[in-house]
Amino acid sequence: MDFEFDQTTEDLRARVRDFLDAEITPAEQVFEEQLSALDDPWAWSTVPVFEELKEKAKTAGLWNLFLPGDKGAGLTNLQYAPLAEITGRSFLAPAVFNCAAPDTGNMEVLNEFGSPQQQEQWLKPLLRGEIRSSFAMTEPDVASSDATNISMRIERDGGDYVINGRKWWITGAMNPEARIFIVMGKTDPSAERHRQQSQILVPRDTPGLIVKRGMEVFGYDDHDHGGHAELEFHDVRVPAGNLIAGEGMGFAIAQARLGPGRIHHCMRSIGLAERAIELMCERADSRVSFGRPLADQGVVRDWIAQSRVRIEQLRLLVLKTAWLMDTVGNKGAHSEIQAIKIVTPETVQWILDKAIQLHGAAGLSQDFPLAKAYAGIRTLRFADGPDEVHIASLARSELRRQRG
Amino acid sequence: MDFEFDQTTEDLRARVRDFLDAEITPAEQVFEEQLSALDDPWAWSTVPVFEELKEKAKTAGLWNLFLPGDKGAGLTNLQYAPLAEITGRSFLAPAVFNCAAPDTGNMEVLNEFGSPQQQEQWLKPLLRGEIRSSFAMTEPDVASSDATNISMRIERDGGDYVINGRKWWITGAMNPEARIFIVMGKTDPSAERHRQQSQILVPRDTPGLIVKRGMEVFGYDDHDHGGHAELEFHDVRVPAGNLIAGEGMGFAIAQARLGPGRIHHCMRSIGLAERAIELMCERADSRVSFGRPLADQGVVRDWIAQSRVRIEQLRLLVLKTAWLMDTVGNKGAHSEIQAIKIVTPETVQWILDKAIQLHGAAGLSQDFPLAKAYAGIRTLRFADGPDEVHIASLARSELRRQRG
Amino acid sequence: MDFEFDQTTEDLRARVRDFLDAEITPAEQVFEEQLSALDDPWAWSTVPVFEELKEKAKTAGLWNLFLPGDKGAGLTNLQYAPLAEITGRSFLAPAVFNCAAPDTGNMEVLNEFGSPQQQEQWLKPLLRGEIRSSFAMTEPDVASSDATNISMRIERDGGDYVINGRKWWITGAMNPEARIFIVMGKTDPSAERHRQQSQILVPRDTPGLIVKRGMEVFGYDDHDHGGHAELEFHDVRVPAGNLIAGEGMGFAIAQARLGPGRIHHCMRSIGLAERAIELMCERADSRVSFGRPLADQGVVRDWIAQSRVRIEQLRLLVLKTAWLMDTVGNKGAHSEIQAIKIVTPETVQWILDKAIQLHGAAGLSQDFPLAKAYAGIRTLRFADGPDEVHIASLARSELRRQRG
Amino acid sequence: MDFEFDQTTEDLRARVRDFLDAEITPAEQVFEEQLSALDDPWAWSTVPVFEELKEKAKTAGLWNLFLPGDKGAGLTNLQYAPLAEITGRSFLAPAVFNCAAPDTGNMEVLNEFGSPQQQEQWLKPLLRGEIRSSFAMTEPDVASSDATNISMRIERDGGDYVINGRKWWITGAMNPEARIFIVMGKTDPSAERHRQQSQILVPRDTPGLIVKRGMEVFGYDDHDHGGHAELEFHDVRVPAGNLIAGEGMGFAIAQARLGPGRIHHCMRSIGLAERAIELMCERADSRVSFGRPLADQGVVRDWIAQSRVRIEQLRLLVLKTAWLMDTVGNKGAHSEIQAIKIVTPETVQWILDKAIQLHGAAGLSQDFPLAKAYAGIRTLRFADGPDEVHIASLARSELRRQRG
Repeated sequence: MDFEFDQTTEDLRARVRDFLDAEITPAEQVFEEQLSALDDPWAWSTVPVFEELKEKAKTAGLWNLFLPGDKGAGLTNLQYAPLAEITGRSFLAPAVFNCAAPDTGNMEVLNEFGSPQQQEQWLKPLLRGEIRSSFAMTEPDVASSDATNISMRIERDGGDYVINGRKWWITGAMNPEARIFIVMGKTDPSAERHRQQSQILVPRDTPGLIVKRGMEVFGYDDHDHGGHAELEFHDVRVPAGNLIAGEGMGFAIAQARLGPGRIHHCMRSIGLAERAIELMCERADSRVSFGRPLADQGVVRDWIAQSRVRIEQLRLLVLKTAWLMDTVGNKGAHSEIQAIKIVTPETVQWILDKAIQLHGAAGLSQDFPLAKAYAGIRTLRFADGPDEVHIASLARSELRRQRG
Repeated sequence: MDFEFDQTTEDLRARVRDFLDAEITPAEQVFEEQLSALDDPWAWSTVPVFEELKEKAKTAGLWNLFLPGDKGAGLTNLQYAPLAEITGRSFLAPAVFNCAAPDTGNMEVLNEFGSPQQQEQWLKPLLRGEIRSSFAMTEPDVASSDATNISMRIERDGGDYVINGRKWWITGAMNPEARIFIVMGKTDPSAERHRQQSQILVPRDTPGLIVKRGMEVFGYDDHDHGGHAELEFHDVRVPAGNLIAGEGMGFAIAQARLGPGRIHHCMRSIGLAERAIELMCERADSRVSFGRPLADQGVVRDWIAQSRVRIEQLRLLVLKTAWLMDTVGNKGAHSEIQAIKIVTPETVQWILDKAIQLHGAAGLSQDFPLAKAYAGIRTLRFADGPDEVHIASLARSELRRQRG
Repeated sequence: MDFEFDQTTEDLRARVRDFLDAEITPAEQVFEEQLSALDDPWAWSTVPVFEELKEKAKTAGLWNLFLPGDKGAGLTNLQYAPLAEITGRSFLAPAVFNCAAPDTGNMEVLNEFGSPQQQEQWLKPLLRGEIRSSFAMTEPDVASSDATNISMRIERDGGDYVINGRKWWITGAMNPEARIFIVMGKTDPSAERHRQQSQILVPRDTPGLIVKRGMEVFGYDDHDHGGHAELEFHDVRVPAGNLIAGEGMGFAIAQARLGPGRIHHCMRSIGLAERAIELMCERADSRVSFGRPLADQGVVRDWIAQSRVRIEQLRLLVLKTAWLMDTVGNKGAHSEIQAIKIVTPETVQWILDKAIQLHGAAGLSQDFPLAKAYAGIRTLRFADGPDEVHIASLARSELRRQRG
Repeated sequence: MDFEFDQTTEDLRARVRDFLDAEITPAEQVFEEQLSALDDPWAWSTVPVFEELKEKAKTAGLWNLFLPGDKGAGLTNLQYAPLAEITGRSFLAPAVFNCAAPDTGNMEVLNEFGSPQQQEQWLKPLLRGEIRSSFAMTEPDVASSDATNISMRIERDGGDYVINGRKWWITGAMNPEARIFIVMGKTDPSAERHRQQSQILVPRDTPGLIVKRGMEVFGYDDHDHGGHAELEFHDVRVPAGNLIAGEGMGFAIAQARLGPGRIHHCMRSIGLAERAIELMCERADSRVSFGRPLADQGVVRDWIAQSRVRIEQLRLLVLKTAWLMDTVGNKGAHSEIQAIKIVTPETVQWILDKAIQLHGAAGLSQDFPLAKAYAGIRTLRFADGPDEVHIASLARSELRRQRG
């Protein structure tokens, strides 16, 4: 047992952190200004400074760090996890390093399951950061916690597939640069429960695909990373070659993307929490109330100490989960993957709430990143199903384990 | 001891509820549409359907219910409290009945402390619902929990007062129809601690008064009730007759407005919580997950039962506080006024969080009123100072009381 | 609506409080010493000072205050409730006033359902405080939250009933002075679900009734009020005249005793919480840590303020419940009776935990009443079934109510 | 980074666990019976079965595992930590392996700081498990969170030291077999703050040393491991050679013992929590309520899942702390040592409370180990000072760290 990162990881941590501090953080406000000057507020990825940052990141060799194998940086989950934490400190950072969801998951899927032609057409420009993408799974009328509930139909018709149904909360899809959607639907409702679903590639401009509206989270439309779209599919027709990995593989593909995605989300959330703790400490030191700095007040100290204690425990669990994925595989890490899904949003939300409270009403406003961060983390308590589903499932595993 | 409302109250409760159900709720969406069609999105009070509703409320005798004495409905705090609860169910209702903050507090102040001329010029149109108003107290650079911290200067210069300084979170002030601001500042920094402040009337269009920007709360700009403005005062000059009740009276006036305002806020919050419980039950009954309605799931039942238990306790404490204000005065009710300030936002926030969780991601979106309600309630934990200040103060009272 | 106690109540509150302060509190330690000098440690009610106190209470007219009607003090639930709160301040007080559970419930049952002969033989000496009693309902092998689960058999055999089965957690039954047990069992397992049970009087010395052992709570055997016995019934035979109110009436009788008992328990718990707040404030004022009295520390203030806020809300809900029982009956107060069952133990336990924390390890020891109080309150979370059962039931009521 | 135990650790884990299951657990009840048959209930270490178990443990090579260096098993903190977890599963296990507090801390102190004569006279019989010992630091009248508060006087008088003062909560000291006490007191109140204290060896039978009474925790006197004594020292005289490591070294010695002791306590607490989770799962599977096993109920699943998630995080933090102590020393692990002190009792207490709740009233009784475990864990929230002191201190470290 050893709690030190290896040398490769330490080197990359230093380089990613330096790049973040030197290049990305100073550019955040420029990005905001250039974004608000766009004609289409959703087209965030066309903002000039973002393009410049991407080029710098490529040049610095900090590109596609998330992707294992020879097309990416070739890092293990445990090696990439602490880098994801650092990128969580800035809303802009993940995309600058081409490590932003949902593109990362989509690239993983195409890398692992895509046909040579699919990889040529879609994976390559994604890896180069030239286009964006979305993953269309969640549906308005069914509990999205269970992939087998999917109601969207994908039906074979000659050399094509025809797609009908509705999706919502499709992150990134309001951005016109999101050129390609990976869509989850049912090809065979009569098949065995986990073999009914398939995933298929649908280019944005396919006739019948309507991007209906952006969903808001609290009052944010999240246009700075492409929003969350409601989509309608009316007889959307694509060639049969767009199906990924064959009919009935949809559930298996979805499972495969889950593990790494959770590590990324959790570690970025931890980075956010660390940022919040820093802001808390700065505020506690600088603000005086009733004659004493906030840092001297017992309740404030309680928040700071509890935040530190919680985040330390959480990070270790996420890192251990990454290590398990690397050593015994996603299946062997199943309980841990569930555990970090349950505890990360809850922990980080608690810390953000305290950080907000310490900042007074300003903490809720556009003057600090805290309220927006809170909104984002709050959505994680529903991502891939609400907390309660994961809690029940983890309890079932525990009960089974105890029965021996 | 008797827990029944008197007959006057019961009659009014029925009439207010009927009016809300018959007139206001159906008009909410119309209001939204007409509001989004305005040239100036902040001018919410010019929306046609709102004007119609006000006329109907006047005709129905449901007007200025909050105001004691012969200029208003003449109700006690205990009689008005349950009516405020009902209006909390709709974001539109308080204003329709001319019972919306900050106009209510401003009318109370002018009614109690205003000169005949001030009443003629500003109170009358406010009572008729013809203009709106704001109350400018909170400042960006000082802890607003303590009125004696105020840094804005109000200086006598001949027959005028000249005002300099900054304010923020001035609710309603983005609306151009907010014609008059009651402004809190210091006339004599060398006076005794609670005699340094004064309140003064400043018409919106006075030269030197700049409405700089709207503050956002979790992404909401709250333009549907005039937002929360940051204001700058550069040598703003008003006649000496605009001072309310004499120099040095600012703190006393602020204290006087506190008590009733808290009752109103708390009861409206309770109304909101009741609405959230209704939505929770509807959702629990209608949504099926893993083969059973949510209503059958233990965790959901826990949320519903706890919500009911908490809100029942809270309402009784707020009503008792209103009763104390009526029988022994605001001073005698001081600890209770503090107690409801502490516990109401916390309780209602908890209920809203559970209601959101039960609705899935939709609960965070524009499709339900829950996230917006959460944002509003969250700000109450800072209104008139953060929770922690009130908690410390209540503890001091308790310690004093116990010492005998 | 009116939050003032009536004059009768205020007079009695003063007299009960004076008696407690003048007579009972000073006698507590004498009681402990005399109790530890007894040959049989369980025979607490034979302690001499206890006999003296009872006589004084009778003389002072503070006797059987709990009992409505002409055999008792004739108070309403709302009038008695604040008196119960006062008696909760001392572990000795309820019994001194002949207002201690389970005798109170047993007297209520005999008063309402007992035959003249049963009243003559058992109610009279109980009302005079000459004997003690127990109520034997809970069983080891079934969930006691549901009276219909009872497995004890009561079978008719000629002019007798014969009883077989086990009971545990029978409070008071270790005391040899507990002369009579009211026993709940099944007379007709084939009857309709709520008509299977009967209650029957079983004198302590009936052959076949074995008092097996005392159950402990956190290490306390509670011998100072008769402990909690495990009982075995082996062909225990009593005359048919011992049955209370007829076969099949067991469930109805159990329901009737529930309401008032809950009010008593909750109000006594509130009295205990008030005592804990006093101890907290005394400790906070007198103990210095790191150069400042504990009373100056933010976390301590938070505990004190939160305790005050919670207990005020709780008391109002319990009082309202008592008022409902007086005005619309136990059935009409059903949801409230459940609500106070859920929230009282949780609230008081929280306060006791903070009071303990403020006292350091001493708070857990025999030097303060806090740990023992905590243990007692903790058991309330199981009394008449665990919290979770009541929560689920209250949620069902709420869902039904909302459906209209 | 690597989350696997090394081979030595894995081997020992298996052997300790096997010994526990095969030898200790079956002997627990025998121990209880033999203990209750003793003339002196405090002399727990004279129970025959305990002597037999110790011999078996020695023979099995599972002896003094806690002690680094050649007098003990020579394990690192990280290697010993998981063994301590296993011993936490049985109240008897730590002593059987000669790994029970406070003997472990006393042996560490004598091993590191004792003179050859002190080691000969006291360390050797302790290492052989022939005698027991106590550590007398906490005092009734001062906040024991700060070692510099100590008021006991140790004064040089010729070739002796003379000791006066009071101590309480001295664990193990009620046992007459606790032959030697390490006593902390002040030799020079005028010295620099951390150089005033010394530690000195005081044999139990020294004249003037009075073992006054046993402190209780909830209702437990903990006689099964020697209770918690209140001690009085009246002119207690010991030879100067009994002083450990020289005058003024008391604080430094206390600090040195802190780190390993916390790891042991925390890991044993985790073992206890694991035992509680097992009991929870067994109960959830075996108990039926309202027609379904408890394991099917949402609230129960929530408790089980949350327990698992919390304990996994906690264990990783404790193990990392042990690793830090091994790699950068106790000083470098200071914040982590504080963090685990804060979070372990809170986490384990939460789990025990849920386990109790799942067992109904039986969970509070002598029929399950849960209530007693709860009482023990509750005291940890005061050990070496209350939670609040450690929280404030950790917050100060964090604020310092963030200031850079």
